[in-house]
Amino acid sequence: MSGVKKQRTDLQKSTNVVYQAHHVSRSKRGQVVGTRGGFRGCTVWLTGLSGAGKTTTGFALEEYLVSHGIPCYSLDGDNIRHGLNKNLGFTSADREENIRRVAEVARLFADAGLVCITSFISPFTKDRNDARKIHENAGLPFFEVFVDAPLDVCESRDVKGLYKKARAGEIKGFTGIDSDYEKPESPELVLKTGETTLNQCIQQVVKLLKDQNIVPSGVTEEVNELFVPENMMNLALAEANTLPALEITELDLQWVQVLAEGWATPLQGFMREREFLQVLHFNTLLDGGTINLSVPIVLPVSTENKDSLGGSDAIALVFKGRRVAILRNPDFYEHRKEERCARQWGTTCSQHPFIKMVMESGDWLVGGELEVLERIKWNDGLDHYRLTPRELKQKFKEMKADAVFAFQLRNPVHNGHALLMQDTRRRLLERGYKHPVLLLHPLGGWTKDDDVPLSWRMKQHAAVLDEGVLDPASTIVAIFPSPMMYAGPTEVQWHCRARMIAGANFYIVGRDPAGMPHPETKKDLYEPTHGGKVLTMAPGLTSLEIIPFRVAAYNKSKKAMDFYDKERHSDFDFISGTRMRKMARTGENPPDGFMAPKAWKILTEYYSSLEKDQ
Amino acid sequence: MSGVKKQRTDLQKSTNVVYQAHHVSRSKRGQVVGTRGGFRGCTVWLTGLSGAGKTTTGFALEEYLVSHGIPCYSLDGDNIRHGLNKNLGFTSADREENIRRVAEVARLFADAGLVCITSFISPFTKDRNDARKIHENAGLPFFEVFVDAPLDVCESRDVKGLYKKARAGEIKGFTGIDSDYEKPESPELVLKTGETTLNQCIQQVVKLLKDQNIVPSGVTEEVNELFVPENMMNLALAEANTLPALEITELDLQWVQVLAEGWATPLQGFMREREFLQVLHFNTLLDGGTINLSVPIVLPVSTENKDSLGGSDAIALVFKGRRVAILRNPDFYEHRKEERCARQWGTTCSQHPFIKMVMESGDWLVGGELEVLERIKWNDGLDHYRLTPRELKQKFKEMKADAVFAFQLRNPVHNGHALLMQDTRRRLLERGYKHPVLLLHPLGGWTKDDDVPLSWRMKQHAAVLDEGVLDPASTIVAIFPSPMMYAGPTEVQWHCRARMIAGANFYIVGRDPAGMPHPETKKDLYEPTHGGKVLTMAPGLTSLEIIPFRVAAYNKSKKAMDFYDKERHSDFDFISGTRMRKMARTGENPPDGFMAPKAWKILTEYYSSLEKDQ
Repeated sequence: MSGVKKQRTDLQKSTNVVYQAHHVSRSKRGQVVGTRGGFRGCTVWLTGLSGAGKTTTGFALEEYLVSHGIPCYSLDGDNIRHGLNKNLGFTSADREENIRRVAEVARLFADAGLVCITSFISPFTKDRNDARKIHENAGLPFFEVFVDAPLDVCESRDVKGLYKKARAGEIKGFTGIDSDYEKPESPELVLKTGETTLNQCIQQVVKLLKDQNIVPSGVTEEVNELFVPENMMNLALAEANTLPALEITELDLQWVQVLAEGWATPLQGFMREREFLQVLHFNTLLDGGTINLSVPIVLPVSTENKDSLGGSDAIALVFKGRRVAILRNPDFYEHRKEERCARQWGTTCSQHPFIKMVMESGDWLVGGELEVLERIKWNDGLDHYRLTPRELKQKFKEMKADAVFAFQLRNPVHNGHALLMQDTRRRLLERGYKHPVLLLHPLGGWTKDDDVPLSWRMKQHAAVLDEGVLDPASTIVAIFPSPMMYAGPTEVQWHCRARMIAGANFYIVGRDPAGMPHPETKKDLYEPTHGGKVLTMAPGLTSLEIIPFRVAAYNKSKKAMDFYDKERHSDFDFISGTRMRKMARTGENPPDGFMAPKAWKILTEYYSSLEKDQ
Repeated sequence: MSGVKKQRTDLQKSTNVVYQAHHVSRSKRGQVVGTRGGFRGCTVWLTGLSGAGKTTTGFALEEYLVSHGIPCYSLDGDNIRHGLNKNLGFTSADREENIRRVAEVARLFADAGLVCITSFISPFTKDRNDARKIHENAGLPFFEVFVDAPLDVCESRDVKGLYKKARAGEIKGFTGIDSDYEKPESPELVLKTGETTLNQCIQQVVKLLKDQNIVPSGVTEEVNELFVPENMMNLALAEANTLPALEITELDLQWVQVLAEGWATPLQGFMREREFLQVLHFNTLLDGGTINLSVPIVLPVSTENKDSLGGSDAIALVFKGRRVAILRNPDFYEHRKEERCARQWGTTCSQHPFIKMVMESGDWLVGGELEVLERIKWNDGLDHYRLTPRELKQKFKEMKADAVFAFQLRNPVHNGHALLMQDTRRRLLERGYKHPVLLLHPLGGWTKDDDVPLSWRMKQHAAVLDEGVLDPASTIVAIFPSPMMYAGPTEVQWHCRARMIAGANFYIVGRDPAGMPHPETKKDLYEPTHGGKVLTMAPGLTSLEIIPFRVAAYNKSKKAMDFYDKERHSDFDFISGTRMRKMARTGENPPDGFMAPKAWKILTEYYSSLEKDQ
């Protein structure tokens, strides 16, 4: 069958339909170039003094690439000096040969489609240039990265005590002491490890690899915000005023916020048909790596609007008279509502509250790149809780978080939820994390009528922290701007991946996430364990760990919420949401230890305010 | 964030829900072990005389692994002698050093999670044992594969003319002539390249890698048949007679056939809940690589049957009184019909003919391993057309096919279909294939009432070949035993992947594949281009190429079916299925060149037989 893979172009070109390359592509010699979306191999050559941070940088880069599913491998003294180069000493000929062999092996790894990271002092320009030539001759990218720290900084670090020995004359020809380090003349990148943090250094290397198309743009940690840059704002505003306008709904604006702030990274705007199909059929984006995205993020328009806007290169999105965003190169395709709802919710029941909205929305969808003209604000006194993924990441950094665990909720927090969060923190500490931070992240977009409104929930959450049930010092409370879809296993993936974008490393998943009763049968719309099962299997959630919920219930003998134990079944009282609401409405108190008293008081206030309204 | 990935076990164990590891795992040094389902790295060390077939075997193995998404890399004279080892000559010290360096580099590749294939004569036991030790010390699997061909065979091949030069004394110390080849004493595998075909050799290596868990069992070319082996049959039959029985329907038996013959490889039987969820949400199996599988292959049972069979370790499946299979370790889970239909068909419309059957089927599904007691036969005179994937592969081999292109159909063949198949063949020839073979593969399982029955279609297809519209010498007509689901973009993936299992390298996809009118709205149930679009994007279809259909229509001026050309629109006449059926019913002839006359005659016979029945 030789030749099968080699000559696809001819037949492709001859067909009317766009051809999509498959996942395994091959370089001219026939090796794997990449198994996930075609990564290109290359060599990242780290050079610098002993103690400058080459190995640290190399390992952190490796960790980053691995966690993003990018094949890579590190060469360093550790795996080279004791193996391939164990027959070399430290004469100048042997040092040259050492670097030559490393360069040849790096070339092989790059040829195999991996990012090869080499960490060697490699002090001489000639040797490094030879390494570059070896790659250039093979047509493989080579990035010289100067890990630049002043000698005194390196010497003060002196992790292995080598500088001390060199100064004492016990080591001869030590680079920086009695042997030269020739600084790179035109390296692709300089990392000032004395001045910038390790994380910043890694981001600089990743940016380089991204710019060079080594790392697909979809799989970086960078949050892809869609706001117009400050210096382009006047131009954009002026343009927006000249564009044909499309009036959008509050729900649409919530999606604009989701997109603008980067929760749906790497989406550049509302989905085009290609992305829509990928999401509906595979719950992933497939161009540039496998990226989890399970819910359509789409903008419905009426036939009338489609007809009037059809020829435009750009459209202004207008909410209540304000031009909030520009949609570029709009692409109209049919809003096949029945099929969309069936695949997204596993039902087409028109009494489902979100499906009802879909059915009432426009018959067309319009995709296109979004340029958002302003930060989306709701002026409800809660905007300061609406932190973007970038802002959250900055917060985590300021808090020196070494692990972030996220908890999604759209309901009041009872002590069962709290128990789980406390337990997760305890376990993370046991695993060696020093500063685990909890992201308590209530959903703030549209919810159905009988859910507790956001403003009351935020008061309730504040009371829970106020009473010390959760530790305010290591918890961030923020609002996730997405609408709620009540789409069960499909939606839980969205909830999880959005928090991954915001920097969460751990995601807690509960029983029946994003579930609700079937509007007709009143039974669970989704099997309660399916959400957790599907989430743990979902492709593309590579850089965080799923923590499945343990079922908590009220332990009558402990008078506290406790992890349910079948053996002691009679001790437990399962307090349903319905029962909780009834108690709150009638002013009855729940059993001791079910919810922090101040938080319970907020709930009773909410429900009695409802009674008054009626 | 160091440590995030390293210690997941503790938290996992503490939770009630089964934890599923994510896709990137890491070896102890922290490298990528695999980006798709955790492949383990290793070295396949090919040793043997010059001309024995090491490089050929190495390249073919690489081709195989690449096409199955397994990361691998080959080391050979080509990329080593001119690079890493260019400073070595042919002294015995240099030869030893040559092999040592290769072994060290192979160790690094294996450590990086790749299958490293080395092709070097490596004549001396000591050098090979050293290579093995280098791997063993690093805890990495090493497989010595003796590529064993007699000297005279190698010498007769003498591709590079080296034996001639050695015999002439122009090369000194040539292995086999004036230098020893020490045969491996206990290699992991011996490949007799003089006696077995290249393909057989590759299968032997793949089997080794599979047995050693290097290659996940899901991603081999081997068709996974579920028939009880001949020598176990009496035992199995005796056991089956003692087991509790479950009566299955004709539709169920069609799925038993599909599973038994290996069309759904690597499924071991009817899907358990985990597989069912993967298929519904991601259209793929995710355990052991990403494997395309878009349709549930499930066995519905009634609550009554579930209750009576619940405690059994095994069940006998019974069709019309015959025990046809044993289902092991049955696992019952809810048949959530509405959700299943919504996700599989994108509609829950109960008038859809397959959905109707689902809704009328049992409320539970039972998954489990299947042991099938007999070849499934239908005794309709067409069983000889029902070739298994293995039988088809054998046929292709006998025909010396170097490319197999598959055409799925459930309708009579008109000259538009034929045009596409002819055109595909022409293009494959242009691309350098010498023996492209067409698999004309009508679907033979359940179809809806108004489709032309299989027996008439088979007669019609025979007439098309008989008239030479398709070339009988390079075409195989066989029956695909699957039922038809009319599930559009979801089903076309199934049609394609099943043919991939049977050895097809190319799959032709048409307009609106597996589509039908919406039973209520009468419009297309699926957007006609979605099938082709989704298929070309579908993950896990790695080893074949999708050939999108060009729209063909009747060209009135050419009096033939022709590829549609917008520029000459008025020349074309689109003859719909409805119009075709009307003509056949009324005895009217279609325009010349629309269908082979004999084939048309069969159709008119069929439709007039219908009239008589009514």
